[in-house]
Amino acid sequence: MTTYSLLILPGDGIGPEVMAEVRKVIGWFETNRGLSFDVSEDLVGGAAYDKHGKPLADETMAKALEVDAVLLGAVGGPAYDNLDFSVKPERGLLRLRKEMDLFANLRPAQCFDALADFSSLKRDVVAGLDILIVRELTSGVYFGQPRGISADDTPGNEGGRVGVNTQRYTSGEIRRVARAAFELARKRNNRVCSMEKANVMESGILWREEVQWVHDNEYPDVELSHMYADNGAMQLVRNPRQFDVIVTDNLFGDILSDAAAMLTGSLGMLPSASLGAPMENGRPRAMYEPVHGSAPDITGQGKANPIACILSFAMALRYSYGLGDEADRLERAVEKVLADGVRTGDLMGPEGGTPVSTSQMGDAIVAAL
Amino acid sequence: MTTYSLLILPGDGIGPEVMAEVRKVIGWFETNRGLSFDVSEDLVGGAAYDKHGKPLADETMAKALEVDAVLLGAVGGPAYDNLDFSVKPERGLLRLRKEMDLFANLRPAQCFDALADFSSLKRDVVAGLDILIVRELTSGVYFGQPRGISADDTPGNEGGRVGVNTQRYTSGEIRRVARAAFELARKRNNRVCSMEKANVMESGILWREEVQWVHDNEYPDVELSHMYADNGAMQLVRNPRQFDVIVTDNLFGDILSDAAAMLTGSLGMLPSASLGAPMENGRPRAMYEPVHGSAPDITGQGKANPIACILSFAMALRYSYGLGDEADRLERAVEKVLADGVRTGDLMGPEGGTPVSTSQMGDAIVAAL
Ligand SMILES: CC(C)[C@H](C(=O)O)[C@@H](O)C(=O)O
Ligand SMILES: CC(C)[C@H](C(=O)O)[C@@H](O)C(=O)O
Repeated sequence: MTTYSLLILPGDGIGPEVMAEVRKVIGWFETNRGLSFDVSEDLVGGAAYDKHGKPLADETMAKALEVDAVLLGAVGGPAYDNLDFSVKPERGLLRLRKEMDLFANLRPAQCFDALADFSSLKRDVVAGLDILIVRELTSGVYFGQPRGISADDTPGNEGGRVGVNTQRYTSGEIRRVARAAFELARKRNNRVCSMEKANVMESGILWREEVQWVHDNEYPDVELSHMYADNGAMQLVRNPRQFDVIVTDNLFGDILSDAAAMLTGSLGMLPSASLGAPMENGRPRAMYEPVHGSAPDITGQGKANPIACILSFAMALRYSYGLGDEADRLERAVEKVLADGVRTGDLMGPEGGTPVSTSQMGDAIVAAL
Repeated sequence: MTTYSLLILPGDGIGPEVMAEVRKVIGWFETNRGLSFDVSEDLVGGAAYDKHGKPLADETMAKALEVDAVLLGAVGGPAYDNLDFSVKPERGLLRLRKEMDLFANLRPAQCFDALADFSSLKRDVVAGLDILIVRELTSGVYFGQPRGISADDTPGNEGGRVGVNTQRYTSGEIRRVARAAFELARKRNNRVCSMEKANVMESGILWREEVQWVHDNEYPDVELSHMYADNGAMQLVRNPRQFDVIVTDNLFGDILSDAAAMLTGSLGMLPSASLGAPMENGRPRAMYEPVHGSAPDITGQGKANPIACILSFAMALRYSYGLGDEADRLERAVEKVLADGVRTGDLMGPEGGTPVSTSQMGDAIVAAL
């Protein structure tokens, strides 16, 4: 029997709370579907800093490189805001992305019909929205050298310092994430929109040319368009349904995917997958995470919505374990629970009602499986 | 009698069409208010490229440095899409910003009540929205060195190229734009939110520290908060009215201000001002522009909305000529015309009606003055 390995990194804030509900879901699949998971758990972010003095221990990094999939909760929180840059909780996350070489970050922005009224956008603008942002995750200004803050005594420079970061993309880095986007588009509506600032940045010109090259040589059947990222932000607000797959760089992807997620009104619902090159078993190296953060304001109150993390596990079932049917089953259970009106606090409309707790939501999903 | 100098750069696409309406407004002020304007006109963008082989002639640049204010229409269009990077229409605009040292770009995002239903956001989320984005405009990744595309034969780099841009901010550059934001906040609701990615970029850490320094030492009376730019994008979509003044860097400002402008549903209505250091007369060096672009799809059809450009001229009256009362007068005329139901095509709701032309809109505003 195949055993599926999973490294769980609950992290900070509500991370551990939502992860407890995923544990219930895993238990259900083991008991009722005869699946065997080899689950290990470890620390990341502030929790790792508290124990090890750094946001990701080397042993944890090594383990992440061995397993079929990593499931991460969230990192960061006010207790860690004043830490030195090099040991900030976020550095743990960035190290995982970089050393696992997870170059394609898949961020679906889907508007669940039951929740369309929660969006700040008009229902007819977002109902049925289903777009996928593919964000490059291992390069660009997040990782480019040189970087840092240094003294700068140029006459007239009040304060005497300068801060530098470097946006750097190779053609190879652009091509591989472009291929990921085109492959995904073929399974969807066959359209890719690539976003950059080629009118202002040479790295954006390279981005545009290389995406076009991959299209012309390998995916001529997919419809490709290009858009400046500022216009992209506008169009996402104006009419997000015009898009199918969006492919963009690390920094633009960070901002545009957060805006897109918020359009749906379902931030507590959105999963993500970060995929790398295929491992020996043919499946990509992978980490899964809810799009939401550590939510310090509601930590420890049983209020967190575990659905984004549970749907992230569904993505693991699909992309890492090849269990598409089980992923469907889990996604249907979530839909059913929502249709039944079960709601955590973040999903309560103005009409009110009684919210369920994190744990009750997890139980309801397990019951619906 | 004071003569107010103005350099008009209509540029490309609908630029010349909307500028013709500003000419009518200027004429009205001369005839009826006894003001004297010394108006010159020149080329920028694609129009300048067609004549000079570059998007801004040196003589035009020199003239821009002499006048009290520059009013620019829009640059770019499909005819220029394949030009070399160094002569793209946008380079003309960037050269003006850089050599005039226009470090503070003021982009109001205001939701006009008559138009609140045009937003893709719910009326109760945007009605009455009045925020001001102050974008740093002369530095950051737009101008940092090194930059460019070069060969990169690192083994495994498919395609063999690399693209580089440099995000670079000095403490002095950050402090001066922060001061501009705090000054503006004092005349509004006294709140500034600064946005960066200090969790990922050292230049963002410097940004945060320097803005905080200016606050603590010079503007302790203004309420200051900090937000990561990705969260900022989310919050702009979720609840834009939480903000008063937002201050951010060149690239984030580009994206966030476009998203914010689109929230209002009034893209054809939004002006902007780019301000530099004080000149000899004590007024800042300044360029004014509509937020909208060259709109090639409607160029030459008499469909363009001239209001954004006319309101940009109103900002010139206020900031460059010290004619706040005349600016108020012009803004009230625009409001009256809108309240009377006069609408260009971009302002037609689903209920329909007959749109007026660019020229008719200009005439209506002049009549309402
Ligand atoms: C926490 C932070 C480092 C991270 C990022 O900027 O990538 C987050 O915003 C995200 O989008 O996953
Ligand atoms: C035209 C382009 C160079 C410009 C920019 O990126 O700054 C535009 O998008 C703007 O916001 O004024």
